Amino acid sequence: MTSFIKHISDNYKSINVIVERDVAEEIEDEISESTTLYTGSNGQIQEKTDLLVTLGGDGTILTAASLFASGDVPPVLSFSMGTLGFLMPFDFAEAETAFHDLYTSQSNVLKRARLECEAVYQNEMKREKTHAMNDLTIHRGHEPHLTNVDIAVDGQFVTTAIADGITVSTPTGSTAYSLSSGGSIVHPAVPCILITPICPRSLSFRPLIVPAGATLTLSVSEKSRGRAADLSVDGQNKGPLKPGDTITVRTEQGDSKGIWCVARSGSDWVHQLNGLLGFNSQFGK
Amino acid sequence: MTSFIKHISDNYKSINVIVERDVAEEIEDEISESTTLYTGSNGQIQEKTDLLVTLGGDGTILTAASLFASGDVPPVLSFSMGTLGFLMPFDFAEAETAFHDLYTSQSNVLKRARLECEAVYQNEMKREKTHAMNDLTIHRGHEPHLTNVDIAVDGQFVTTAIADGITVSTPTGSTAYSLSSGGSIVHPAVPCILITPICPRSLSFRPLIVPAGATLTLSVSEKSRGRAADLSVDGQNKGPLKPGDTITVRTEQGDSKGIWCVARSGSDWVHQLNGLLGFNSQFGK
Amino acid sequence: MTSFIKHISDNYKSINVIVERDVAEEIEDEISESTTLYTGSNGQIQEKTDLLVTLGGDGTILTAASLFASGDVPPVLSFSMGTLGFLMPFDFAEAETAFHDLYTSQSNVLKRARLECEAVYQNEMKREKTHAMNDLTIHRGHEPHLTNVDIAVDGQFVTTAIADGITVSTPTGSTAYSLSSGGSIVHPAVPCILITPICPRSLSFRPLIVPAGATLTLSVSEKSRGRAADLSVDGQNKGPLKPGDTITVRTEQGDSKGIWCVARSGSDWVHQLNGLLGFNSQFGK
Amino acid sequence: MTSFIKHISDNYKSINVIVERDVAEEIEDEISESTTLYTGSNGQIQEKTDLLVTLGGDGTILTAASLFASGDVPPVLSFSMGTLGFLMPFDFAEAETAFHDLYTSQSNVLKRARLECEAVYQNEMKREKTHAMNDLTIHRGHEPHLTNVDIAVDGQFVTTAIADGITVSTPTGSTAYSLSSGGSIVHPAVPCILITPICPRSLSFRPLIVPAGATLTLSVSEKSRGRAADLSVDGQNKGPLKPGDTITVRTEQGDSKGIWCVARSGSDWVHQLNGLLGFNSQFGK
Repeated sequence: MTSFIKHISDNYKSINVIVERDVAEEIEDEISESTTLYTGSNGQIQEKTDLLVTLGGDGTILTAASLFASGDVPPVLSFSMGTLGFLMPFDFAEAETAFHDLYTSQSNVLKRARLECEAVYQNEMKREKTHAMNDLTIHRGHEPHLTNVDIAVDGQFVTTAIADGITVSTPTGSTAYSLSSGGSIVHPAVPCILITPICPRSLSFRPLIVPAGATLTLSVSEKSRGRAADLSVDGQNKGPLKPGDTITVRTEQGDSKGIWCVARSGSDWVHQLNGLLGFNSQFGK
Repeated sequence: MTSFIKHISDNYKSINVIVERDVAEEIEDEISESTTLYTGSNGQIQEKTDLLVTLGGDGTILTAASLFASGDVPPVLSFSMGTLGFLMPFDFAEAETAFHDLYTSQSNVLKRARLECEAVYQNEMKREKTHAMNDLTIHRGHEPHLTNVDIAVDGQFVTTAIADGITVSTPTGSTAYSLSSGGSIVHPAVPCILITPICPRSLSFRPLIVPAGATLTLSVSEKSRGRAADLSVDGQNKGPLKPGDTITVRTEQGDSKGIWCVARSGSDWVHQLNGLLGFNSQFGK
Repeated sequence: MTSFIKHISDNYKSINVIVERDVAEEIEDEISESTTLYTGSNGQIQEKTDLLVTLGGDGTILTAASLFASGDVPPVLSFSMGTLGFLMPFDFAEAETAFHDLYTSQSNVLKRARLECEAVYQNEMKREKTHAMNDLTIHRGHEPHLTNVDIAVDGQFVTTAIADGITVSTPTGSTAYSLSSGGSIVHPAVPCILITPICPRSLSFRPLIVPAGATLTLSVSEKSRGRAADLSVDGQNKGPLKPGDTITVRTEQGDSKGIWCVARSGSDWVHQLNGLLGFNSQFGK
Repeated sequence: MTSFIKHISDNYKSINVIVERDVAEEIEDEISESTTLYTGSNGQIQEKTDLLVTLGGDGTILTAASLFASGDVPPVLSFSMGTLGFLMPFDFAEAETAFHDLYTSQSNVLKRARLECEAVYQNEMKREKTHAMNDLTIHRGHEPHLTNVDIAVDGQFVTTAIADGITVSTPTGSTAYSLSSGGSIVHPAVPCILITPICPRSLSFRPLIVPAGATLTLSVSEKSRGRAADLSVDGQNKGPLKPGDTITVRTEQGDSKGIWCVARSGSDWVHQLNGLLGFNSQFGK
C-alpha cells in the first residue's frame, strides 16, 4: 500500500492522499519524507475526498462506503489483494495502470444504487439511518421462533413473512445473500429492489422485485415473540429489533446518489457471472 | 356484448364502435337499427381505434394487442367473463361503470412494457417481426434432444442454455410461464427483461434479469440437432427454428410504446399477488 | 385434560394413568378421589409407560419423545388443542373415540423413523447422544461468518457446506425446516435421510437424500471462524459447536426403534399435503 | 469393439459372445476365424445372456436394458467411449481389467431399481407394458395447453398436475430430467419413487417422494384438451396420450428384478456428484 501511495504522490502532484487515522499511524514510518499524508476525522475525510481507493475484499468496499453514510459517496476504485470479487474488477498488481486510466478519463464506470434505510425502534423511541450497498436483512438468528415481518410497498400491505428472515437488496446485492436464498441475478443497472424471503414457512413465497422508486416498510409483527430478530446491514449486525419496530427502505434518489464504481469494461457483469458464480455449468453429457 | 355496444352507442354519441369483421357479421342481427357498427380490415381498424375493449381471458388481450403488432397499441380496457386474471381487473358486470370512469378521466392506468422481437430464419432467408406482452419462448417441444441456445446481451455472449428451452419475458410476463419455470415475481413498473431457463441441464442456471434497454440475441446453436426448437410468442406457436436462426429481443422504447392498461387502482399488483397467485400461504403452524 | 384422565380411569380399570410430576401437582386438586394418578422420575416413567398421550402442537410430541431419548419410545397418541398438525391427526374433541379405537385395536399406526445423533465436542472432550424425530440443524445464528461443515457419508467425504447452515432430517421432518430450505416432500415410509443446505453460497447445492442405513458425519471445519455454529435438535438449541466438533447421525435401527404414531387412516399423508401445506394450489387460470 | 471380443474369446474359453444381429453382420469381416460370434432374435438373446456389456453413453445402457423389458435384465458392465456418465463408471481403455475383475468376482455392484409401467389407452382399447431405468414423462410437447394429469398413490387421489408435464423417476433418474425440473438428488439405494412436476402452474408444487412399494396412477384428465400429451420412457417417445388414458407405475419387486450394474467402487455416487454434476461449487469468496 505504501508503494502505491508513494507512486501517487510522486506522479500526480496535484493529488493529496488521505488515509484513515489509524492507517496514518500505522504506516507513517514506512512513508518517505517526500510524501505527504493527510488524515482527519471521518467528517473531515468525507468532505474532502474526491476518489475512494480500497484494497481488500468486497467487505472493504462496503465498509468504506458506510463511512459516507450521511452524504454522497465519492467514486470508488477497488483493488483485490488476490481473488477477484463482484465489486473488485482489478487486482492490486494493476493498480498503477488502473489509476492512470482513471486519471486520464479512460475508465469505465458503473453506477450502483444504494438503499437508504431508517430503523424506528419504537420501544426505545430511537431512530437510526443507514445505507446499504448490498442488502439489509432481518433474521431470527438463534431465536427458536420464526420472525413475523409485515411487508408493505408504498404504504400498502403486501404480505407477512413468517420465516428465518427477509432480505431486501439492491441489484448489486442480488449476487450476495439474496442469491443464497433463491433470488434471481439482477444486472446492476436495473432500477429495482429485491425482496427475498429466507427459509419461509410457505411453499409459495417466491422472491419479489419492485421498482427502485418504491418505499418498503418492514415491521416486526406484534405477534413475534421475545427478542424477535436482528437487523444487519451489508453484513454488519445492527442489533436486535423488537415487536413494533419498523424499517423503511428506499433507493437513494438523485444524480449525486448511488456509488460510481470504476469498472474494467462494460461487460464486467458477464465476466463475473461466468467467472465468479460458476453460472450455468452443465451436468451429465 | 351487444348490450354493452348498445349502451355505448346510446350514451356516448361521439364514440364510434368498431368491431372485427367476423364479429360484425355475427352480431348484426342482434344490434338494433339505432346503433351503428363500424368495421374494416385490420389495417383500417388499427388506424382508427382510440381505445381497445376486450372481453375474455388474459389470452384475449394478448391476441388483441398482437393485431397492433406493427404500430402503437391503443389503451386497453379489459373485462373478464368470470374469473379475474392478471390483465383483467374488471368483471364484465362492472362494464358500464368502468367505462364511465374511463370516459370521465377517473381511471387508473398502468403502462405495461412490450417486447419487440425479430426472428431471422437464416436458412430460409426470411425475417419476421413480432411483439410480446408476456413472453417469447424457444422450446424443444417433442424433440428428444435438448435445445442449445446461445444468449448474448448487447452483443456480448453470456451463456449457452442447454435446456428444454428458454423464455424471455416482460415484468407482466413474470407471473406467466417464467413463474412456472422458477422466475421471480417482478412489478410491471420495473424496466427490465427476464431471462428464465426451462429445465436446464445445469444446477447453476439461476434466472437472470437485465435492463429494459438491453438488446438480447438468442441463437439456436449449430450444435443443436434436427428440427431444433419451436418459437412461441405470447403462447402462439410461430413454427420451427433451425440451427443458425436468431431472435433479437428488446423492449419497445418511446412514450407512445408499451400498452396502457386501465387498472382498478394503483394497487392491483398486490391484490393479484394475494388473490390470483395464492402468494405466500403458510404451512404447518 | 382432567376430564380425559377421569374418563380413562373410570372406563379402563386395568390402565394406570401416569403424568409428569409437575403436572401431577398442578392437577391434583381437580382430580376426584376415585381417580389414581401415578407419577415418578423421568427414568421411572420411561420404564412403565406403554402408551404416550400428548396434548398440544407438534412441538409437544417432539418434547415428549425426547424424554425417551435413551430407550424405546412407546406408541404415541396425539391430540391437537385446535389446529391440526403433521404429527397430530386427531382433535382433542375426538379423544374418547380415538382412545377406544386404539384400545380395541381398530387404529391405524404409522412408524416414523428417528435419528440417533452423537455430538463429539472435541475441545471439551465431551460426547452427547440425542435423538431427533424431525431434524438436526447446524446454523450460524447471529455469526457474521458462514458455517463451514464437512459432510461425509459412510466415512466418505462428500462436500463442504459453506452456508447459513445445514439440516439433516427424517422423512417426517421433510415437511418442517427442510421444506422451508427447499427440500422435497418425502413420505414417512421412505427409509432415508435428507441433507438440505440452508442458504448455501453455491448455485449448485441441490438437496441430497441418502439411504436410512447410511451414517452421516458433519464436522465443523477448522476453517470456520469464532463461535462457529449452533446445534439444534428438533428445534431445541443444544448450544455452540466449535471448529473440530463432529456430529454423527444415523437412523435408529431395529424393530423396537422409531416411533409408532396412531394415525387417523392410511392416507393421513395425502390429507396433510393438501390440508396443511396448501400443496399445489394453482395460479392464474 | 472387435478387439475386445477377440480378447474375451481368446482368454475366457467358456464364455460365448453374443451380439445383436445387425452388429454381427457389420463386424463379421473383422472377426478372425478363431472367434465364434453368436447372435439371434431378441427373444433368443434375452434367454441366453448372463452379462450385458455396453459401449457408449448412458443412453446405450437404457436402450440395452429396454431389450429385456419383459423379463429379468442380466448384470450390466458399461464402458464409455470418452466422457464418463452416471451409469458408466469405466472408460473403454480399462475394459480388459474391468472384465477380469468381474470374472474373478472382485467387482463392486450396485443394484438399480427399475420402474414397471403399464399404459392403458382407453380410447384405443390397448395396453402396453414398458420399463424405465431413469424415468417416465408425460409432457405437452408443442401443445399450447398445459397438461392436466391426476396423480394417485395406492389408489388415493393426491393432486392434479397442471403443468408442462410430470416426470416419475427412479433414484437413478434423480440426476436426469427430474434434476433439471428441480428434484432432489437421491442415492440409488433409497427405495423410492420421485414425482417431479415440470413447470407447474403453481407456486406450491414441491417435488414428492414416495416409497418404492407404492403404486402410482397418472391419468390424463378429461379436462385436458386436444392431443393432450406425449408419453416418453427413458427418453424414448411412446406417442400421444388422450384424455382418459392412464399410466400405472410401480417399482419392480423381487430379488431378480432391478438392474445389477458393475461399479468401480462403493463410492461411485459421491464421485459422480462432484465430478459429473459440478455439485456445490462455491461462488464469491
